[in-house]
Amino acid sequence: MKAVRLHDYHKSPVVEDVPEPTISGPLDVIVKVGGAGVCRTDLHIIEGQWAEAMGPELPYTIGHENAGWVHEVGDGVTNVAVGDTVILHPQPSCGLCLACRAGRDMQCTGGAFFPGLSNNDGGMAEYLRSTARACVKLNPDTNPADVAALADAGITAYHAVRKAVPLLYPGTTAVVQGAGGLGHIGIQTLAALTATRIVVVDRNPEALELARQIGADETVLADGGHVDAVKDLTGGDGANVVFDFVAEQGAERDAWAMTAPAGYQYVIGYGGEFKAPTLDFVAGEKNVIGNIVGTYNDLAELMVLAQAGRVTLHTKQYPLDAALDALDDLDNGRVRGRAILVP
Amino acid sequence: MKAVRLHDYHKSPVVEDVPEPTISGPLDVIVKVGGAGVCRTDLHIIEGQWAEAMGPELPYTIGHENAGWVHEVGDGVTNVAVGDTVILHPQPSCGLCLACRAGRDMQCTGGAFFPGLSNNDGGMAEYLRSTARACVKLNPDTNPADVAALADAGITAYHAVRKAVPLLYPGTTAVVQGAGGLGHIGIQTLAALTATRIVVVDRNPEALELARQIGADETVLADGGHVDAVKDLTGGDGANVVFDFVAEQGAERDAWAMTAPAGYQYVIGYGGEFKAPTLDFVAGEKNVIGNIVGTYNDLAELMVLAQAGRVTLHTKQYPLDAALDALDDLDNGRVRGRAILVP
Amino acid sequence: MKAVRLHDYHKSPVVEDVPEPTISGPLDVIVKVGGAGVCRTDLHIIEGQWAEAMGPELPYTIGHENAGWVHEVGDGVTNVAVGDTVILHPQPSCGLCLACRAGRDMQCTGGAFFPGLSNNDGGMAEYLRSTARACVKLNPDTNPADVAALADAGITAYHAVRKAVPLLYPGTTAVVQGAGGLGHIGIQTLAALTATRIVVVDRNPEALELARQIGADETVLADGGHVDAVKDLTGGDGANVVFDFVAEQGAERDAWAMTAPAGYQYVIGYGGEFKAPTLDFVAGEKNVIGNIVGTYNDLAELMVLAQAGRVTLHTKQYPLDAALDALDDLDNGRVRGRAILVP
Amino acid sequence: MKAVRLHDYHKSPVVEDVPEPTISGPLDVIVKVGGAGVCRTDLHIIEGQWAEAMGPELPYTIGHENAGWVHEVGDGVTNVAVGDTVILHPQPSCGLCLACRAGRDMQCTGGAFFPGLSNNDGGMAEYLRSTARACVKLNPDTNPADVAALADAGITAYHAVRKAVPLLYPGTTAVVQGAGGLGHIGIQTLAALTATRIVVVDRNPEALELARQIGADETVLADGGHVDAVKDLTGGDGANVVFDFVAEQGAERDAWAMTAPAGYQYVIGYGGEFKAPTLDFVAGEKNVIGNIVGTYNDLAELMVLAQAGRVTLHTKQYPLDAALDALDDLDNGRVRGRAILVP
Repeated sequence: MKAVRLHDYHKSPVVEDVPEPTISGPLDVIVKVGGAGVCRTDLHIIEGQWAEAMGPELPYTIGHENAGWVHEVGDGVTNVAVGDTVILHPQPSCGLCLACRAGRDMQCTGGAFFPGLSNNDGGMAEYLRSTARACVKLNPDTNPADVAALADAGITAYHAVRKAVPLLYPGTTAVVQGAGGLGHIGIQTLAALTATRIVVVDRNPEALELARQIGADETVLADGGHVDAVKDLTGGDGANVVFDFVAEQGAERDAWAMTAPAGYQYVIGYGGEFKAPTLDFVAGEKNVIGNIVGTYNDLAELMVLAQAGRVTLHTKQYPLDAALDALDDLDNGRVRGRAILVP
Repeated sequence: MKAVRLHDYHKSPVVEDVPEPTISGPLDVIVKVGGAGVCRTDLHIIEGQWAEAMGPELPYTIGHENAGWVHEVGDGVTNVAVGDTVILHPQPSCGLCLACRAGRDMQCTGGAFFPGLSNNDGGMAEYLRSTARACVKLNPDTNPADVAALADAGITAYHAVRKAVPLLYPGTTAVVQGAGGLGHIGIQTLAALTATRIVVVDRNPEALELARQIGADETVLADGGHVDAVKDLTGGDGANVVFDFVAEQGAERDAWAMTAPAGYQYVIGYGGEFKAPTLDFVAGEKNVIGNIVGTYNDLAELMVLAQAGRVTLHTKQYPLDAALDALDDLDNGRVRGRAILVP
Repeated sequence: MKAVRLHDYHKSPVVEDVPEPTISGPLDVIVKVGGAGVCRTDLHIIEGQWAEAMGPELPYTIGHENAGWVHEVGDGVTNVAVGDTVILHPQPSCGLCLACRAGRDMQCTGGAFFPGLSNNDGGMAEYLRSTARACVKLNPDTNPADVAALADAGITAYHAVRKAVPLLYPGTTAVVQGAGGLGHIGIQTLAALTATRIVVVDRNPEALELARQIGADETVLADGGHVDAVKDLTGGDGANVVFDFVAEQGAERDAWAMTAPAGYQYVIGYGGEFKAPTLDFVAGEKNVIGNIVGTYNDLAELMVLAQAGRVTLHTKQYPLDAALDALDDLDNGRVRGRAILVP
Repeated sequence: MKAVRLHDYHKSPVVEDVPEPTISGPLDVIVKVGGAGVCRTDLHIIEGQWAEAMGPELPYTIGHENAGWVHEVGDGVTNVAVGDTVILHPQPSCGLCLACRAGRDMQCTGGAFFPGLSNNDGGMAEYLRSTARACVKLNPDTNPADVAALADAGITAYHAVRKAVPLLYPGTTAVVQGAGGLGHIGIQTLAALTATRIVVVDRNPEALELARQIGADETVLADGGHVDAVKDLTGGDGANVVFDFVAEQGAERDAWAMTAPAGYQYVIGYGGEFKAPTLDFVAGEKNVIGNIVGTYNDLAELMVLAQAGRVTLHTKQYPLDAALDALDDLDNGRVRGRAILVP
């Protein structure tokens, strides 16, 4: 089968023929890929940024946002059958450790791997090996290419917003800083799950325009005066929750300045350094909340919103052979929404 | 009456005669002071550290940890009567704003003041003017001097631990960094409210010895190897919650390093600067929680523990006239537990 | 001034002249009534159903759903001023007991009264005496008659739904049993605060039609087969939360039968008797949750939704002189939405 | 091997020879039984009370409280190895459904079975077939017979108390109604996890005496005046939480009468019928909470308390051959604590 393989860091991956994956254990599931999202993290992988943390042996197949159809199952698999339409949680967790058993898949201590980042082949290929615990069953008529991007980008935004729901009752204000792909899902999720006032901050006026169409109550251009603008919109206090989808180049400190006393800064983007006097935490009783990729149940819930049309994502499809074009378009800002490879 | 008055920053306060406070509004309560805690914050006030934030007009009476007996009440006061033994919440909140009405006294937006720090006379005096909403009624036979220190130091430690209770189920580990006055109350509160494993970290071997007597399961000398020692005690992960009662001179970064994935650093001390890559918040899903002085209900709950003997605090009493000695002893590390002025 | 006074149980109240109320304490607020809701509870009061529980001395003025303008304030009132437009929380709580201070106004132990039900005159009159803690300030241009009904009926529905928000994530099902005035507010609140699937059950096809317009995803006619119909809609399990706005004549047992394992029956209506084997609670881990009138903060939050147009209520206005017509119309099912007296 | 087999309802089981269980799927675990608890539910099984609900085909082996050593594992098992000391969660859940993945094992919809009650052989035998997800690994030197009873009775009590922890802050009162085996674990868990005041109600003065030794602050003899006695102990209000380990013969209604406004009745025992006017739920905002057997993580947490000596249970051991004696002793009130079969 064809697959997008990384042979060397700092060099483009290669689309080449490799053997199809096979069942290696009783809980394995082979999925025929219907859509594989192309993510900024893939660019970071190529640049070697994840080499140390995940340590994959080169060459391997990248791609960690996948949906498709079940092709073959191990003899212990009971939750899906050949032919089922599925979207895959990116981390096939063990289901046996205390974290998994408390619903915290991403803190799995049972040797969970992350196909496409770790030493396991990912899903920019015709077939992908995953496991029973990664499969969320979809309506049979769902087109995998339409939802694949929700598997990673989607649940990252959903997870953060979902955690904040109890904080966002009527009368509160939430700021979404960064109205790109993840931010858009965040805005739609906020509008679906809460009645908070949604203020969106971005450098790009077009992104703000789109934000307004999908649920933003107010938009603020990030032109240097945005912290003051958010303060003005909130009677001087700042927002109850600031979702920071940028978290680099100073945005992480703007987020803190926009956070009200007793408020919460949710870190979702990364790259920068957070810095604040400990006195800020004490006098203002302010908090910083970390956020990783969502759980399996987050993905299942997000699919409910997606299938009801309440969360949508603009996609641009490419054949698998055009993977390098897709990566190039992403790297050069030519993708609106999400690039999806369709094998 | 006698009162401890601050006339100039960077100069010692003066014990001098001033008129007794009088009822100025229907909800005022005049308390005959039975005990006034001497707090490190009083040293900071004298050094001018709070001048800008609180803006008191000099001279004024310091003292923000008080208990005593109700001496006179305004005509709208219904919850206490003359003669009642009371401990005073340090911030007489308005009871009318949304924060007060949600139980978040310290986020009161109704013009709450803080006697002894703000432009209102504090309680290092024979009498103090407070309000109905600040009074927690005590058993009539309670000696105010025995509990006064719990009014501010006590509820600061209690508040942080109380918020963390849902995180500290059996099998978890909590670190208490800094086993001074607040830390001791934190340790006792942890032992009373949870079954977590309590690990205490301090530079002082005697403080660790005392920590063991009041509930620590493990103690670690803060000699440079303490972060590794906490990791070793927790299978390499770090603690689920780290209560940082120090939060300066690098302790605030040690606390972060001792915090497990999906764990929480509770900032209670202050003085230093917290700093971490935003990636830490994402990859580890770690959190930093701010903590201010506790609420009125925290104080009422802590009094239940105190009156049951489950939280105790060593005190050293001084007559009001010896206020400068008490401040001096505190400044020079000669107070074990808490110095209390008894008018 | 004119007021609607109850002289004898089981006899119609009388519209008659009484002296205007006067300030009796420092926290009193006299409100010029702009709208007074007519509630089914008023019919129950006239029938004597609340005589024992609340013990008012006859004659007295009924009416417990009020909005208007501040007319006069006591000398301890700081949160409203003469001329402010306000809606009144029905129970002027003390603000001093532990319940009030935890945000649980309706469990106030400080001698809170309930004007219009207890031995205090209510608001079917030109003026009403309430207190500072009952006043929620509104935009000055709000017409009190448009929102008065939200003061009691509104927050009762809002309170129950608000408590259930954490249970109603995407993929869950909520049943609203009883699509009358409270039910309509419940449906709109569910649609505003959650993305749950909303199933409405009622005997009246017209009520179901209206329910669909304001947010119901599914409607079920309560014709005897409704329990089975709800089970069919939920894969045989029942709903995660059943809001029972009826709670009499067997509805309270239907609600239990419609509740899924690990689900919650929220009791909001009353009149019937709940009955179930204790084994049901154990084997199914099912729960029954009581719900009283909402809190002050609930009212403030509901006003945010109302002023944003997300919760609306059809009203029919009557002059104060026509109070008996309004009560009669209500008693005979001729009021769609809520009857409001406008003095 | 020897096993205790039920051939007919209403007749004593028979200790007889049957083939040892074998691995039937990749996640199976065969455990050499070290201790099998004898539970009142076993008496109910023999009487046929579970025949309809669980539908086991006779004859089969009873016993649902087990600990022992891993004897053989399927080829997909990664969390335990041959020779490990384990205690078994009674329901081997699927790990794949949304309930399992949210940590709610007992609401597993994936075809979970309950060995010893359902059509699967239980653990009153030399060997038992369970699954990977049921195994909690213990310190190797733990004697399985000492802890076996915690596998079902223990986690039932623990689960209920654990859920109530946020309700039981200092100043609250909890009632434990029924100080038998489960009640004792409940009392010890309350003392370990909270600082609430613990009031124990039982008919048996000796049980109350023991309750005092393990953590009860107050005891009340259930002699008819116990509801009033609890009210007297709580200023007339009742308790914040009433744990009802009896729930039959009127105890379930006493529990309701002992519950304070805004309080919670936790149903853990069963047999009776709960009955209350819906008005009680509304006017008092009172709640009834159902409780089933605890989760796997509950069992892991309880083992932490047990291994620290904070929860202990008196046991009386019998050889497997004497199973009928054990059942008979239990039926006739001759077992103090828990009877344990040791094969």
